Amino acid sequence: MTVLANGWVKKVSVTPPSLEDNTADGDRLERALMAILKTEMVDIDLSVLVNLPELLRKGNYNLRCVLFKDHKKWCLSGISSDDTDRLTGLAVDLGTTTVVLRLLDLSNGRTMAEYSFSNPQISIGPDILTRIHFAEKENGLETLNSLIIDGLNRAIAELCRSGNISPYVIHLISVAGNTAMTHLFLGLNPRFLIREPYILVTNRPGCLNARELGINANQSAKVFVFPNTGSYFGGDLIAGILYSGLNRSDKTAILVDVGTNAEVVLGNKNWLVACAGAAGPALEGGVTKMGMMAGPGVIDRVSVDPETGLFSIHTIEELPPRGICGSGIIDLAAVLFLSGMIDIRGKFVPGTCKGKLKEKDGLKHFVLVPANKSAEGNDLSISQADIDSLIRSKAAMYTILETIASYVGISLAELSTFYVAGTFGSLINPHSAITIGMMPDLPEGTYKSIGNSSLEGASMILKDSRLMDEIDAIRNSITYIELNVNQDFMNRFSAARFLPHTNLSLFPSVKSDGLVKNLKVVTPVKTGVQK
Amino acid sequence: MTVLANGWVKKVSVTPPSLEDNTADGDRLERALMAILKTEMVDIDLSVLVNLPELLRKGNYNLRCVLFKDHKKWCLSGISSDDTDRLTGLAVDLGTTTVVLRLLDLSNGRTMAEYSFSNPQISIGPDILTRIHFAEKENGLETLNSLIIDGLNRAIAELCRSGNISPYVIHLISVAGNTAMTHLFLGLNPRFLIREPYILVTNRPGCLNARELGINANQSAKVFVFPNTGSYFGGDLIAGILYSGLNRSDKTAILVDVGTNAEVVLGNKNWLVACAGAAGPALEGGVTKMGMMAGPGVIDRVSVDPETGLFSIHTIEELPPRGICGSGIIDLAAVLFLSGMIDIRGKFVPGTCKGKLKEKDGLKHFVLVPANKSAEGNDLSISQADIDSLIRSKAAMYTILETIASYVGISLAELSTFYVAGTFGSLINPHSAITIGMMPDLPEGTYKSIGNSSLEGASMILKDSRLMDEIDAIRNSITYIELNVNQDFMNRFSAARFLPHTNLSLFPSVKSDGLVKNLKVVTPVKTGVQK
Repeated sequence: MTVLANGWVKKVSVTPPSLEDNTADGDRLERALMAILKTEMVDIDLSVLVNLPELLRKGNYNLRCVLFKDHKKWCLSGISSDDTDRLTGLAVDLGTTTVVLRLLDLSNGRTMAEYSFSNPQISIGPDILTRIHFAEKENGLETLNSLIIDGLNRAIAELCRSGNISPYVIHLISVAGNTAMTHLFLGLNPRFLIREPYILVTNRPGCLNARELGINANQSAKVFVFPNTGSYFGGDLIAGILYSGLNRSDKTAILVDVGTNAEVVLGNKNWLVACAGAAGPALEGGVTKMGMMAGPGVIDRVSVDPETGLFSIHTIEELPPRGICGSGIIDLAAVLFLSGMIDIRGKFVPGTCKGKLKEKDGLKHFVLVPANKSAEGNDLSISQADIDSLIRSKAAMYTILETIASYVGISLAELSTFYVAGTFGSLINPHSAITIGMMPDLPEGTYKSIGNSSLEGASMILKDSRLMDEIDAIRNSITYIELNVNQDFMNRFSAARFLPHTNLSLFPSVKSDGLVKNLKVVTPVKTGVQK
Repeated sequence: MTVLANGWVKKVSVTPPSLEDNTADGDRLERALMAILKTEMVDIDLSVLVNLPELLRKGNYNLRCVLFKDHKKWCLSGISSDDTDRLTGLAVDLGTTTVVLRLLDLSNGRTMAEYSFSNPQISIGPDILTRIHFAEKENGLETLNSLIIDGLNRAIAELCRSGNISPYVIHLISVAGNTAMTHLFLGLNPRFLIREPYILVTNRPGCLNARELGINANQSAKVFVFPNTGSYFGGDLIAGILYSGLNRSDKTAILVDVGTNAEVVLGNKNWLVACAGAAGPALEGGVTKMGMMAGPGVIDRVSVDPETGLFSIHTIEELPPRGICGSGIIDLAAVLFLSGMIDIRGKFVPGTCKGKLKEKDGLKHFVLVPANKSAEGNDLSISQADIDSLIRSKAAMYTILETIASYVGISLAELSTFYVAGTFGSLINPHSAITIGMMPDLPEGTYKSIGNSSLEGASMILKDSRLMDEIDAIRNSITYIELNVNQDFMNRFSAARFLPHTNLSLFPSVKSDGLVKNLKVVTPVKTGVQK
């Protein structure tokens, strides 16, 4: 069986004992591992020692060892005497809203199965702040911790059932989550995260025992929790940087994770600067308020025929439309703007909208799908207030991007790549985002959607042992800047509250003359909800 | 509060966090500890992190930390923000027959309480071999492990009750036991200990979590298990060497632990040579067969008035006599020999014994206490077979001593100190032991009884952090020699089967002319069973 060259699984041959060399089994194995790893210390768990004598002899002193190393030390997280045994790892994206698991074969790096579930802590509160406050109540922390651990164990059981394996073969688990989720997962109280000077319990949780966390896996399985740089910049983003490769490139690029917050990292192999949208109104929050989460029957794409001016929609799983999600709203706003149905302030132009405009509760609504064509028999529309909210959100997004770029003294136009991460981010059509001035006017091909970069980063670390040092290097090289809502920020924000922007020279590709001819056709693509 | 200069408790001041230095609490403490300990790594348990934020703030960023270091790394095994909190340690002598615990205050090193109990594994088998075989049966290992862990937890509860403390304040536990007991305590199968090439599961169990061993103590308490050098030379003996100081002296001395086996270490600060009596009939085994364990009413001393020839006995707790223990038998044999009642072969001399000799079951018995003066109304006597057995045992003991001395090319007469360890050993009167030729004829003051050296060594390590390196140095410098029962050994053994020895020049102080005048009077000393 082949073994990943830089993976965590190592074949180890141990000199058989004799009367002349009667070193104990554990010490003998440790000696062999120290030689292979060129290290002076390998932690061997008592639970590994329990089975070691039998496995050593069964395998005729040849073992496959699952090793692991955090920033402190090497440890042994599993042994096998049988070459046909599966040795697996589990990558976890510990999202505030959705938790995604991926089971990998540690020997060859192949994905075996994936599973996602809604974070059961949503029952306490959908947002992290509510949960942090709840954790301060009596048994609050224990409740939140149990919810996520039990949820993970149920998910592991599902994954194992579908992959026809036992949780016993899971030897490594890597977990990437934001700082608060990481604390709740570890059973650490996040109360000081939200109080000046915003102190965490730990920056580098490192390598822990699955057993002590209550996770069902091999009894000697290790859990690596991605480190953070502070309250607002968690392990999920460090995993995302790792996956994007931002930190390995000569050229300066940007990574934007559009989730509950907008988190932004700008940099290259020499430096990394990060900020998070906690200081201003974040994007997904603003957008999803008026829409709904992506799901079957939800409109995720809106386009228009440049000749006929007819709108065309695409729904997830191509079911009758029942609502519109964030990416659909961005598309719609772009289409409305380019066709002159909203002006540069985002206000409806009744003369152009014609029969599509309705007045409800004293507010103008643009009806995208009339009641008789929708799944649930009601108009699918967007109000003036929704458009106003979207404009504030997109302005905040662009202002954050401008602020971080100006902090390091570069122009957004200089970016070699614009990585968009996150489930929501992956659905956004860059053309639409540029049209409304949410993202900078960069050439085609500059935008790269990288999906769930947190899960991908967590998976990478299970496949390549060399990356562990890279994670530490990323953590150490990040300069986190607080987005102070000062005059400068407000000036940028005001300028960004137009479509696409007050300064049109920043968006040369966007030309709104009220003619839909300038529209690029967005062909509805069959798409599903990303797991 | 004063703190032991080289103890494990350290006062640590941590720089309070600020917006400029928002390192997490755990990382902040680790940074402070690394500076104090001049090390690059300190393991901080998740269970310490759980309470850290609150305690740090309560103690105004001043803590007392219980640290520990095994051969691999430093770890933090407890924190306290309150100077009046007790921080305690538990030393354990994990005996095959008796387990002894000592509770210590880690801040000042003072003994708080002691407790001993019969090893509950005796219900499986009194000897270690029976237990090793039992461990191979289904659930055998689990049963043996539970017996000792449950026994320890009951003892801890007793200790804590008597000391009016909570098990929560126990932060460090040091355990010294023989190799097999150590394995059973750790839940490791000792099956290969007794099969060529006699391979242990681990030589250096090092520092473990009390929690994972199932021991009731502070949730972050660490357990240090003394290392061993092989099947026959366990952590109890390494603890004993540490306590005797054999390894720190310029002069060559010997340490004999007369327990179930006779274990012997010879050496000085430059070298240590060890052997164990597993190769020949061990002493306590031979002696206790005919006697009984020391306990209330048991004769532990026998002397004779040199003028009148009257025997005088001493019983433990000075109760009416109900039996005789090993040290009493050795005394008795010496008295019988010096008074001419047994000859140099150990055979009764009827003419001298006169009315004290009785015939029972075809064997001659010497009646020490007639039935009407004993506690239970039966003669307390010693048979010819008992004397024969004692002579084999004492011959084995002396042969082992001679063999190890000749291995390193010294004569027993050159020994600067003869340390006698073990509960049984501490009861032996060296004069009697010399008289029967069980121990070499060394000058008064050369013999030093050091009691339960295993418990003392285990206690020392809780008081002085510098000794950890010494333990490793002891382990690494021991040369263990197998006592092969070869012609040479058998020749020595045959020569030692006389009283005191075939070669009388080895025992110049022993002169048996049938006159009790040569006897040294052994004044009965009030003695109790050592805990």
